[in-house]
Amino acid sequence: MRVVALAGGTGGAKLADGLQAVLPPGDLTVVVNTGDDTERHGLLVMPDHDAVLYMLAGRFDFERGWGQVGETWAVMDGLAEYGEEAWFRLGDRDFATHIARTARIRDGQGLTRAVRPLQVALGVTTPILPMADRPVRTQVRTDDGWLDFQEYFVHQRQGPEVREVRFDGDLEPTAEVVAAVEAADVVVIGPSNPIVSIGPILAGPVRDLVAARARADIPVVAVSPIVGGVALKGPADRMLLSLGHESSARGVARIYADLATDFVLDAIDADQEPDIGALGMRTHVTDTVMADAAGRDRLARSVLGFVS
Amino acid sequence: MRVVALAGGTGGAKLADGLQAVLPPGDLTVVVNTGDDTERHGLLVMPDHDAVLYMLAGRFDFERGWGQVGETWAVMDGLAEYGEEAWFRLGDRDFATHIARTARIRDGQGLTRAVRPLQVALGVTTPILPMADRPVRTQVRTDDGWLDFQEYFVHQRQGPEVREVRFDGDLEPTAEVVAAVEAADVVVIGPSNPIVSIGPILAGPVRDLVAARARADIPVVAVSPIVGGVALKGPADRMLLSLGHESSARGVARIYADLATDFVLDAIDADQEPDIGALGMRTHVTDTVMADAAGRDRLARSVLGFVS
Repeated sequence: MRVVALAGGTGGAKLADGLQAVLPPGDLTVVVNTGDDTERHGLLVMPDHDAVLYMLAGRFDFERGWGQVGETWAVMDGLAEYGEEAWFRLGDRDFATHIARTARIRDGQGLTRAVRPLQVALGVTTPILPMADRPVRTQVRTDDGWLDFQEYFVHQRQGPEVREVRFDGDLEPTAEVVAAVEAADVVVIGPSNPIVSIGPILAGPVRDLVAARARADIPVVAVSPIVGGVALKGPADRMLLSLGHESSARGVARIYADLATDFVLDAIDADQEPDIGALGMRTHVTDTVMADAAGRDRLARSVLGFVS
Repeated sequence: MRVVALAGGTGGAKLADGLQAVLPPGDLTVVVNTGDDTERHGLLVMPDHDAVLYMLAGRFDFERGWGQVGETWAVMDGLAEYGEEAWFRLGDRDFATHIARTARIRDGQGLTRAVRPLQVALGVTTPILPMADRPVRTQVRTDDGWLDFQEYFVHQRQGPEVREVRFDGDLEPTAEVVAAVEAADVVVIGPSNPIVSIGPILAGPVRDLVAARARADIPVVAVSPIVGGVALKGPADRMLLSLGHESSARGVARIYADLATDFVLDAIDADQEPDIGALGMRTHVTDTVMADAAGRDRLARSVLGFVS
């Protein structure tokens, strides 16, 4: 069963890790958001790709919520001493990722080709495909104007209200992404921020590819990142509200209603099941909170079980 | 007394440190070789500049012979795991230097402008001027053909015999170097490898600037890097021999004879003083081995004393 999972940084990455654990090797492909990629100190940083990479490699630092376990901070301390901006913290092992990748890109490799050897080197056999090979940069409009995503997300700590979101760049998917989606037996839209994590992936031609799978009776199953009205991590809840959505499973379901065939919501939100069903999707209620590896595997098994 | 010191990586850097210690603030300018600069992992590494930088900042690792004291190696370990070439070891704090500098250069700054803030950040008030703003790459011809300098120096551990040396790039000195040499009351040619450390500095127009100072009766004093026939560090002795020179203070003196007014040799080589004097230079015999900070200060004081 060929499964394509769309993922942002944390929820989607966790579910991808569960899917990797429960599927036979070779069955999973992860398509990852590149809209929050950014250049720091002349190096390309890919927060969502790297979250998935470290997660699937068993190195993700769950306590910190990003980066690798056991990180050290010598480079960052050195850069701070040199007067470089230090609000975007990067660990030493993380720098190795950004340095190796940036060197490959400066050698002329596209994102997909530049990141694959890094995945293989960390023992990750699951392909983690950047949604596009060329740069895309998510920007958010606040009351102070347009901000680069990481300026909003990290520097301003998601403080400002988001009034509008746009994706600056070339959303053309890679041949690898097109092939993976066209061959998928199941498409999973992971429990990541629907606006700025899944949003960029579905803002381009990938949306039509996924819609074509749904028309071909292939399940397209979205998992709600909102549980009990709040996002488990990140600003999805406030962002949904400030952009005129409802911060609820139902609010997320409305965003995916014209694309997904199936919607997975948490047991705590079971009362919203009829409303979501009325949107034309099959609904599935389960415990969606992934507190540990067992939780990730359990949700992955549930999601696959619902649609197969 | 405005002193300009020409320096390579270790001997010249040590003498520069002594000069900085004994001269009033503002009197010393160091012009540093950039011929052994190299790109590693997409980052510009400047071994001689950084040796002088760390030396003058009091951070040079004398035990290792390069880099900063207390270094850690997390980035290098990460890069090695990613399959990147690992024979050119760089510490984490060193990476901060290369990252900050490369970012400035990619922003369009020349070498001089890119490195000055790093010097200031480490508390080094002495200007350390790259000999040129544009890339120069020393290459050595061995029996296997032309090699980049660091391939010969680090990767092949100075094993092959050097048959020829060339400097690939633009040797045009910066306005800062020109101004410093033209204003110098003393020019010190440090005890660095005369072929590949001092050689690149004097292969371009700086040579004529220094010669003009000598004609204006400004002392140009060279300090021998060869003591008792051997180089205290590096391959200068074997390189002198394989290029047809003598590996001795006298051999070095012959190289500088048409430029320098004064030559400092070690007491152990005092028997060569008449030969060196016969080349037309004033000779000065002293203990040139700088075993510690006191030794560096002592040699600096001696050199300045000889010519003032």
